Amino acid sequence: MRTGLWLVGARGSVATTAAVGLLALRAGVAGPTGCVSELPAFASVPLPAWDDIVLGGHDIVHTPLEKRADQLADAGVFSHAVLSAVRPGLTSVDAEIRDGYHPATHTGSQASAGKRLSEDIRSFATRHNLERVVVVNVSSTEAPTPELPEHADLGLLEAALEDPARAVLPPSSLMAYAALRAGSPYVEFTPSAGISMSALRGLAADLGLPYAGSDGKTGETLLRTVLAPMFTSRALRVRSWSGTNLLGGGDGETLGDPTKVNSKLESKGRGLAALLGEEVTAPLHIDNVPDLGETKTAWDNVSFEGFLGARMNLQFTWTGYDSALAAPLVLDLARFTAAAHAAGQSGPLSALGFFFKDPMGSDEHRFAEQTRLLHEWAGTL
Amino acid sequence: MRTGLWLVGARGSVATTAAVGLLALRAGVAGPTGCVSELPAFASVPLPAWDDIVLGGHDIVHTPLEKRADQLADAGVFSHAVLSAVRPGLTSVDAEIRDGYHPATHTGSQASAGKRLSEDIRSFATRHNLERVVVVNVSSTEAPTPELPEHADLGLLEAALEDPARAVLPPSSLMAYAALRAGSPYVEFTPSAGISMSALRGLAADLGLPYAGSDGKTGETLLRTVLAPMFTSRALRVRSWSGTNLLGGGDGETLGDPTKVNSKLESKGRGLAALLGEEVTAPLHIDNVPDLGETKTAWDNVSFEGFLGARMNLQFTWTGYDSALAAPLVLDLARFTAAAHAAGQSGPLSALGFFFKDPMGSDEHRFAEQTRLLHEWAGTL
Amino acid sequence: MRTGLWLVGARGSVATTAAVGLLALRAGVAGPTGCVSELPAFASVPLPAWDDIVLGGHDIVHTPLEKRADQLADAGVFSHAVLSAVRPGLTSVDAEIRDGYHPATHTGSQASAGKRLSEDIRSFATRHNLERVVVVNVSSTEAPTPELPEHADLGLLEAALEDPARAVLPPSSLMAYAALRAGSPYVEFTPSAGISMSALRGLAADLGLPYAGSDGKTGETLLRTVLAPMFTSRALRVRSWSGTNLLGGGDGETLGDPTKVNSKLESKGRGLAALLGEEVTAPLHIDNVPDLGETKTAWDNVSFEGFLGARMNLQFTWTGYDSALAAPLVLDLARFTAAAHAAGQSGPLSALGFFFKDPMGSDEHRFAEQTRLLHEWAGTL
Amino acid sequence: MRTGLWLVGARGSVATTAAVGLLALRAGVAGPTGCVSELPAFASVPLPAWDDIVLGGHDIVHTPLEKRADQLADAGVFSHAVLSAVRPGLTSVDAEIRDGYHPATHTGSQASAGKRLSEDIRSFATRHNLERVVVVNVSSTEAPTPELPEHADLGLLEAALEDPARAVLPPSSLMAYAALRAGSPYVEFTPSAGISMSALRGLAADLGLPYAGSDGKTGETLLRTVLAPMFTSRALRVRSWSGTNLLGGGDGETLGDPTKVNSKLESKGRGLAALLGEEVTAPLHIDNVPDLGETKTAWDNVSFEGFLGARMNLQFTWTGYDSALAAPLVLDLARFTAAAHAAGQSGPLSALGFFFKDPMGSDEHRFAEQTRLLHEWAGTL
Repeated sequence: MRTGLWLVGARGSVATTAAVGLLALRAGVAGPTGCVSELPAFASVPLPAWDDIVLGGHDIVHTPLEKRADQLADAGVFSHAVLSAVRPGLTSVDAEIRDGYHPATHTGSQASAGKRLSEDIRSFATRHNLERVVVVNVSSTEAPTPELPEHADLGLLEAALEDPARAVLPPSSLMAYAALRAGSPYVEFTPSAGISMSALRGLAADLGLPYAGSDGKTGETLLRTVLAPMFTSRALRVRSWSGTNLLGGGDGETLGDPTKVNSKLESKGRGLAALLGEEVTAPLHIDNVPDLGETKTAWDNVSFEGFLGARMNLQFTWTGYDSALAAPLVLDLARFTAAAHAAGQSGPLSALGFFFKDPMGSDEHRFAEQTRLLHEWAGTL
Repeated sequence: MRTGLWLVGARGSVATTAAVGLLALRAGVAGPTGCVSELPAFASVPLPAWDDIVLGGHDIVHTPLEKRADQLADAGVFSHAVLSAVRPGLTSVDAEIRDGYHPATHTGSQASAGKRLSEDIRSFATRHNLERVVVVNVSSTEAPTPELPEHADLGLLEAALEDPARAVLPPSSLMAYAALRAGSPYVEFTPSAGISMSALRGLAADLGLPYAGSDGKTGETLLRTVLAPMFTSRALRVRSWSGTNLLGGGDGETLGDPTKVNSKLESKGRGLAALLGEEVTAPLHIDNVPDLGETKTAWDNVSFEGFLGARMNLQFTWTGYDSALAAPLVLDLARFTAAAHAAGQSGPLSALGFFFKDPMGSDEHRFAEQTRLLHEWAGTL
Repeated sequence: MRTGLWLVGARGSVATTAAVGLLALRAGVAGPTGCVSELPAFASVPLPAWDDIVLGGHDIVHTPLEKRADQLADAGVFSHAVLSAVRPGLTSVDAEIRDGYHPATHTGSQASAGKRLSEDIRSFATRHNLERVVVVNVSSTEAPTPELPEHADLGLLEAALEDPARAVLPPSSLMAYAALRAGSPYVEFTPSAGISMSALRGLAADLGLPYAGSDGKTGETLLRTVLAPMFTSRALRVRSWSGTNLLGGGDGETLGDPTKVNSKLESKGRGLAALLGEEVTAPLHIDNVPDLGETKTAWDNVSFEGFLGARMNLQFTWTGYDSALAAPLVLDLARFTAAAHAAGQSGPLSALGFFFKDPMGSDEHRFAEQTRLLHEWAGTL
Repeated sequence: MRTGLWLVGARGSVATTAAVGLLALRAGVAGPTGCVSELPAFASVPLPAWDDIVLGGHDIVHTPLEKRADQLADAGVFSHAVLSAVRPGLTSVDAEIRDGYHPATHTGSQASAGKRLSEDIRSFATRHNLERVVVVNVSSTEAPTPELPEHADLGLLEAALEDPARAVLPPSSLMAYAALRAGSPYVEFTPSAGISMSALRGLAADLGLPYAGSDGKTGETLLRTVLAPMFTSRALRVRSWSGTNLLGGGDGETLGDPTKVNSKLESKGRGLAALLGEEVTAPLHIDNVPDLGETKTAWDNVSFEGFLGARMNLQFTWTGYDSALAAPLVLDLARFTAAAHAAGQSGPLSALGFFFKDPMGSDEHRFAEQTRLLHEWAGTL
């Protein structure tokens, strides 16, 4: 089952780590720690093998993949020894990265841009004799997008895309459109709009294509979806849940931009009330702290009430390498989505909510229940 | 369904808080926060109502319940306002507390002591016209008990009990024996031996009595059974899980005794390897810090490995009132165990593993799965 | 040395706790924990005795002091037993609280308001036969004040004060003006403008009055001024110092207002660069979390660099009762300031920088050095 | 001022990091972060320059220094780039390391061993034309030593040393003896006995040699000596101070040995009561957690009482590379001790208490005061 994994933002930290990781797994210089799809429970699911996955992608920057990988090794995300072992493979991946779409530099209509993006994916599939290509967006988070009538009606949307004077879709959504038009399933790993617009979701359904998203769950939110059900199962009442996230790296810089951080804060906040069954005071901050480099630290303070009004407290700090947390999930998502496509599934893959802060096609945020649903679903593939 | 709840250690912090709480719930001066059995999901389970539960118990100390309750209110476990509202009720509970068994002061055989303890329970049932009495041990943790052949053979055991020169059972197990002989289900809320001996478990089966235990899960271990499955579900490898517990109050004092703390440490440690699927470095301390009063603080440091060997970290601190965490679970256990007895169940109630660090009749330590099992089982009652 | 302590915001949490505390010290039902001026090292400084201090003040609300004290006792700031012992005294203090100045309700010129405020202080002094009255502002934090030319020139200022159409001074500064005109030293315990304007500082100098401020140092900033010198003394380079403050109570509400929180954030931020000798990334948040009640929690994450570029980390959490931390300092400040006035000192009391986040008359933020300076100065009184 | 720095335990983590660091400073590939002696305030103190310091030492293991350095670079203590730049220098240092003394492998009297150790130091001095050699012990912590009459009387001691059937001194103290007999100042950087015995201290005085120690203050204790004075200066009463230390690396292994950890726990505990002015509950643990590698994490929980009995809390976690924290202090100590020797000082260098958990010749544990004393003393050199 030869499968393409097309990464939007292919030269970023997450994509580079995914590439290094896939090559390292294939070369046997790293084990599958962090790869959910390699757990024994999924052994009989017909997933593409590591050897069957070919990488390519789009990006708007031109930093060579090797250089990005050197920086990540210096920052401790993986060792220089692992990097040395996969250098030749990285060069091959680099050769499969095409220019991404950027509204500031593109001339002509979004339709023409979309056609070119689609063609990049199709020719990648042909060149490598791939049965399917899964497109995963791991590019920088965009600012929230104002809703337009075109987002809800494919006919209006496609007409507007032809107009060179308009840019009716944010880059992530144009990319989702291009993916669908190339016959590819689409996975939104960021909080950007991507495939969330109803016109695009309808198109996916019409074309019989599956999709999944959004916003990979790798740290603070993962813990919240693990811990909140403990309180509700024990009838303890959470009174406030305060959080601070410190991020270095490119992600910190992007989210240091107040317009862009809102996409993330909304995505992070949505689940908590659902998990707790009521709104609670929940101040949440994301701070750009460049010196932290590739690491991120989250601190949460949970104030809760127990029997007879007793006031009690839980605090946690989570410190990790963002890319090391995200990259294996990207590989997992490519495999599960490819298998779903092979099995003829289309529309939102709600069972993949396990991977996301803001799961599409599901209101289930409880991590243990998401785990159960993933395993159950995978058994049907 | 008039039900007795017989508390061993009836003048301790947990029992006193349970008594104040039950009376407060009944008087409508407190809500059921922390009471699992009051969750909407259990609304149709035939549990005894708060009004149907009558309290009594054994203790080896004679501090009036009101005095203990005053101390707990001063320490912030509940408000003086709540206490004022339930004072008369406490006096009635006080009148139902009988002298407990203490090997140092008892003269005569353990059989005679057991007979007297049984009789206390039976006459309580008669006096209050109770359909059944659930016995719950919330007394101080005992030192681990050396195994004896008598513990595995009821005939040998009962012969040994008759010998005034021997004390073949620790107090908790003599109490379990007395409970069974009084026709009562038994719940072990501490890490003491209690009903764990095979001779006693066999007796419960013979008599058609259910039992449950052991060691109520209220803090650090609760969190571990919630968090560990996150790591395994995400294929992250925990490398070490270090913990420190600071306890004030009587519990701190008891567990400051190196022989007694071992019962607790063993009980706490057993689950972690089961949860993680392998042994990990897991230093664990319980310190007696008297100035903390009724609160306890746990600090855990989890070092784990992710994709490509990335080393990451989770730390948490949990600060709570031990009695406020434990007391509602004692009430829940009394209700669920009474309902199980009414439904004709006997032997270990494995579905109550949800409440325990070291669940009897079950190897399942994952909290979310325990929650599911509890709900499923309750639906069958 | 009969001394008045006139509290602006006399019905607030800090003032009420100061009043309860002073009365409790006098009645011998509480010890002087938290009172710096009671340390043995200050035994020979001619400070007013607890028995010599009379309380009064201004406030714009009318909640009886006893009611406020009941709320604080319920919230755990002090015990109901202590409160019972001082109730009669609180009634006497209540009788000495006068209406504060509020621009929204005042009609007429600020000069007339100032005259009335001054008169309140003078008559208090006369009524109680006081040698001096120290005025301490513990009212709610104001939004930052735009600078005006009048703030730098007493002549211009007093002319503007006469104009009923203008409100040239924020309430704290009008209060400082009134204090000075009543012959009273002034202490600014909040980050509000108070006496900071050069026209008012000049007036204090002209009148031979001492003053001190600003913004009492009771938590996160106290720790920062203790910890930062450790890094510099050890030649360790702090790379970022991130902080989050969670506050309940009225202070949380006031500081939840984005315009008012800026006064506080500025006051907190100023010292860090001075302490570290360079600007570092230092995101800082103050969140209003009402359910925390009278407690506040600060979390700081310090990322620092050591030998050969090694990256290391310090985190702390500080949880305390804001009023219990601040109130004894208010009493200390009253005593030290009274002694300074008695000794004929005027202008900024830089040695009192020990008590403040943003010390007037001093650039010294290092806590240990501030301690040394305070002791040295007190020795000269 | 050509100066030798003779490291006992010269192939350990601290010594290797000190060697790499000294060479890196000399080569200009690293800055002096973490080196106290390079602070501007010490610019005019006549300290040996980095270029004037020659390294040598004793060790009982034979792992090449380069190999140890490779391991430390892999563990993240310093970068591979820094290591590459200093590799040739390391080879030269390696050539100056001689076999250390180990009681299990030594045959003959301790006197003969001592003579050989002394001779190693003397010939190092001659070979490199050194004005003096400072000996610093950074070898593994020893178990506490039982006191013997010989430890208090030089005559008895030297007689006993001649007896091949006895081993009257632990290795660290034999090394201190050898250093003194070679005319070298001695610095005890570990909690081992070293020069603490009165016979050896007397010998140093007789020979006009300075010494310093003991037990480098690099983490939890550093913070305690910074934070404790904050509580006392503010009249806040610490009620308990609980600590847990998690250590990987060789230090973790050594201190995982219950007999050896006692030296460290005693050294760490001594200061707290002195700092707080009273004994407080202070449980303290050191756990061996191998997967932490070269890092160590300390968690402290401080429970304190404020005004009117309010109970409050401070917690901190400190995570660092043990060797990166210790190594620059070793270089600092060599420089300051050399300068003191050059200035004719002898006996305990109490001003160097700044560097130690258990300062010799001083009862001052407050870090800020130690800082002041160090600066004052350095000004006299």
